[in-house]
Amino acid sequence: MSDFLKSYIRDVPDFPKPGIIFKDITTLLKDPEALAKTGEALLEMARKHQISKVAGIESRGFIFAMYLAERLGAGFVPVRKPGKLPAETYSRQYQLEYGSDTLEVHQDAFEEGDVVLLHDDLLATGGTAEAACHLIESAGGTVVQVSFIIELGFLNGRKRLEGYDVQSVITY
Amino acid sequence: MSDFLKSYIRDVPDFPKPGIIFKDITTLLKDPEALAKTGEALLEMARKHQISKVAGIESRGFIFAMYLAERLGAGFVPVRKPGKLPAETYSRQYQLEYGSDTLEVHQDAFEEGDVVLLHDDLLATGGTAEAACHLIESAGGTVVQVSFIIELGFLNGRKRLEGYDVQSVITY
Repeated sequence: MSDFLKSYIRDVPDFPKPGIIFKDITTLLKDPEALAKTGEALLEMARKHQISKVAGIESRGFIFAMYLAERLGAGFVPVRKPGKLPAETYSRQYQLEYGSDTLEVHQDAFEEGDVVLLHDDLLATGGTAEAACHLIESAGGTVVQVSFIIELGFLNGRKRLEGYDVQSVITY
Repeated sequence: MSDFLKSYIRDVPDFPKPGIIFKDITTLLKDPEALAKTGEALLEMARKHQISKVAGIESRGFIFAMYLAERLGAGFVPVRKPGKLPAETYSRQYQLEYGSDTLEVHQDAFEEGDVVLLHDDLLATGGTAEAACHLIESAGGTVVQVSFIIELGFLNGRKRLEGYDVQSVITY
C-alpha cells in the first residue's frame, strides 16, 4: 500500500529553497483512488484509540483532519498560525532552524477528558508537531496519536514525539 | 437544520478589525454532531452533480473539501495563496476592498472534462470565490457548484457567482 501511494508523490527539487527536495502530495490528493486509500490508512491507524477530537495543523493538516473527525465521530479543532483564530487563544512558540514560529488554539477548543488525534501532512524534524502536542495538552486535551501522510525517517522527527503513538502512511 | 447549525456559530465582535462581527465556525467544528450534519448538508447539495474534483480555498476551505471529495469519489485540489504550491502554477489576482490578493493552482491540477465543486467556508462579497472559479476554468476545469458553510446574504456575493449553482448551509 505504501509503495502504491508513494508512486503518487511528486518530488519537486529546490522548493522552498535550493537543495531541498519537496515531497508534493497534490498529485496524490487529486487522484480519487489514492486520496481514498490514504484516508482509509489514516483512519485504520486511528481506530485503535477512542478519539474525541481530531486536531489539524494549518494548513495542509486541515485536509484529512475533518474527514478523520467525521469518520471517528469526533470533533475537529484547528491549530493555527498567530492572529488567525478570532476568540481567546493559548499560544506556543517553538524554534526552527533559523528563527522561531508560533502556533495557537482556542482556549475553549478542548474539554476535560478529550482524547486527541493530532494530524499533519508531513513529519520532518518534528518541531511543529511537538509544539502542537504541548499546546493541546496545555489547553486540556490528551494527545494519544500523532499521524502523518509522509514521514522523512532520516530526520528522526519521531524521537521528539516519544510517548505518543506516531503513525505515518508513507515513510522515506 | 440551518437554525440548529446556526446555534453553533459564535459571533466575535471586532475581528479581524473594529466594527466587523466575525462568524466563528470553530465552535461548530469541535462538536461531532454539528460537524457531521454540516458535512451531510454540503454532501447532499453536491450529489445532484457528477463531480470529479473538489477544489478547496486555503485554508478554511480545506476543512470540508477532502471529506466531500472522498464521499463523492472525486479528487481534491487545493487553491492556495502565492508561493505555497511547489510545481508550476496558474495564478489570478483579484481586488479587495483595500489592495489586492492572488490565488494559485497547479497547472496539472485539472484534466479535460473535470467537473468541479469549489468549496470555501464563507461567502461574503464573493471576490475570492469568483477569482477561484476563473482560475479553475483557465486551468481546464468546469465549475458547476460553489458551496459554503456560511453566506452573508446582505453582501450580495452570489451576484458575482451568477451562472454557477451557489449553495450554502447557513445564511445570514
